[in-house]
Amino acid sequence: MNSSLYIVKVGGNIIDDEKKLFSFLESFASLKGNKILVHGGGKLATSLAEKLGIKQVMTEGRRITDEETLKIVTMVYAGLINKNIVAQLQAMRCNAIGLCGADGNIILARKRNHPEINYGFAGDVEEVNTGLIGNLLEKNLTPVLSPITHDRKGQLLNTNADTIARETARALSDQYPVTLIYTFEKSGVLLDVHDESSLIPGMNKKNYEALRKDGKILAGMIPKLDNAFAALESGVKKVIIGKADELEQLVHGTSGTTLIHE
Amino acid sequence: MNSSLYIVKVGGNIIDDEKKLFSFLESFASLKGNKILVHGGGKLATSLAEKLGIKQVMTEGRRITDEETLKIVTMVYAGLINKNIVAQLQAMRCNAIGLCGADGNIILARKRNHPEINYGFAGDVEEVNTGLIGNLLEKNLTPVLSPITHDRKGQLLNTNADTIARETARALSDQYPVTLIYTFEKSGVLLDVHDESSLIPGMNKKNYEALRKDGKILAGMIPKLDNAFAALESGVKKVIIGKADELEQLVHGTSGTTLIHE
Repeated sequence: MNSSLYIVKVGGNIIDDEKKLFSFLESFASLKGNKILVHGGGKLATSLAEKLGIKQVMTEGRRITDEETLKIVTMVYAGLINKNIVAQLQAMRCNAIGLCGADGNIILARKRNHPEINYGFAGDVEEVNTGLIGNLLEKNLTPVLSPITHDRKGQLLNTNADTIARETARALSDQYPVTLIYTFEKSGVLLDVHDESSLIPGMNKKNYEALRKDGKILAGMIPKLDNAFAALESGVKKVIIGKADELEQLVHGTSGTTLIHE
Repeated sequence: MNSSLYIVKVGGNIIDDEKKLFSFLESFASLKGNKILVHGGGKLATSLAEKLGIKQVMTEGRRITDEETLKIVTMVYAGLINKNIVAQLQAMRCNAIGLCGADGNIILARKRNHPEINYGFAGDVEEVNTGLIGNLLEKNLTPVLSPITHDRKGQLLNTNADTIARETARALSDQYPVTLIYTFEKSGVLLDVHDESSLIPGMNKKNYEALRKDGKILAGMIPKLDNAFAALESGVKKVIIGKADELEQLVHGTSGTTLIHE
């Protein structure tokens, strides 16, 4: 088994804010050892689509990716955001390499086939190519993954960044003790969404089941936590959920909610 | 010395044409052995800038890259074009990996400092990181390079694709016998621009100097050829200039103009 690997997901709320992003990247760059950054999109894609008069359709919180929208997310996620993050990390002497799922076939996906909703060019992850990612990590490179994948038939696909982080974490768990960190707006899992002091610092599956049974877990957190525990069940060592601007504390367990299997 | 390496530059006239691009990529994918593709931009960046109302200023045939234009070329070159080429090559079972100069710090540049013209965020190549490119080639990966570089201080820079191809070829000449192929609209170096049968199939430096002295080389070709011979002088084995849709013939020396040092 190799030395530990951090996989950190950072979302739109940080990406949209230049100063917050810079400060987050400084913390990320200073993490010792193997690390991978997975970034989402933010409002840039939506505002570019608006400027170009391309109507964005959302169904159940998900963007419907028609052909024109796919071009926009490819430009914004795999181009503008990814390369700007890489250039900033390089300036911080973190040897980042920006990739989408098509690059080196690292993330193979299939076009989502939903019985009722046509999500367009949305991709569900099929396979993560751990060989290439492992090679890059061995060379002290830090992969920065944008949420664009492909079907290996020439089609790019828009893919959920949380899913990419989870599937990458799962796939690399055979080779590395993986800590998966989901950053978001809140301090972690809260018993009361309006009270940051109601943070639950740690949970295992049993605690979670009990709290959920008692209705103590907010509905919005349930899919996130179900996903996190699924990752733990497939070998990920630890999942940490918390604020992006507290990345160092999250890693040291002094902030956020740490989820473990047992 | 490793086995031979082809570095192929493809320009806007092919990138703008979906069918021509597909057919070019098929020929490129079928090239045996080590290969690198360097692509330019095409009209997509200009048309996106127009749609967004961002005025494009050209000075002596070069785009002035202001802050908004840099965002556009980063989106279009490093995002849309690069990832679509990679996805198509992957479908052709060529294990492509799309990179810009910031990725793994493969191409370090400095912001152009011209005494009279402010080119904005235009970059001149300083150094090519052959270590990472060599590692990728060893793993049978095919780097696809977009013409965006960085200064390692966090700034992305718009860089001429011909220059990237040449500097990459020069830098890798220590490790590989490099054939550098510049594809463009014409069949190669022509004595009469209107007559494709006036093609010069091969030239060395002496032939070139003689033809140039006699005024037989078209003015527009002189910078291209000067650059090509400079590449040959710094160790590149062969430079071939010709049509993108004749890539296989170019490689076999049955089409285009082949330039050699002696």
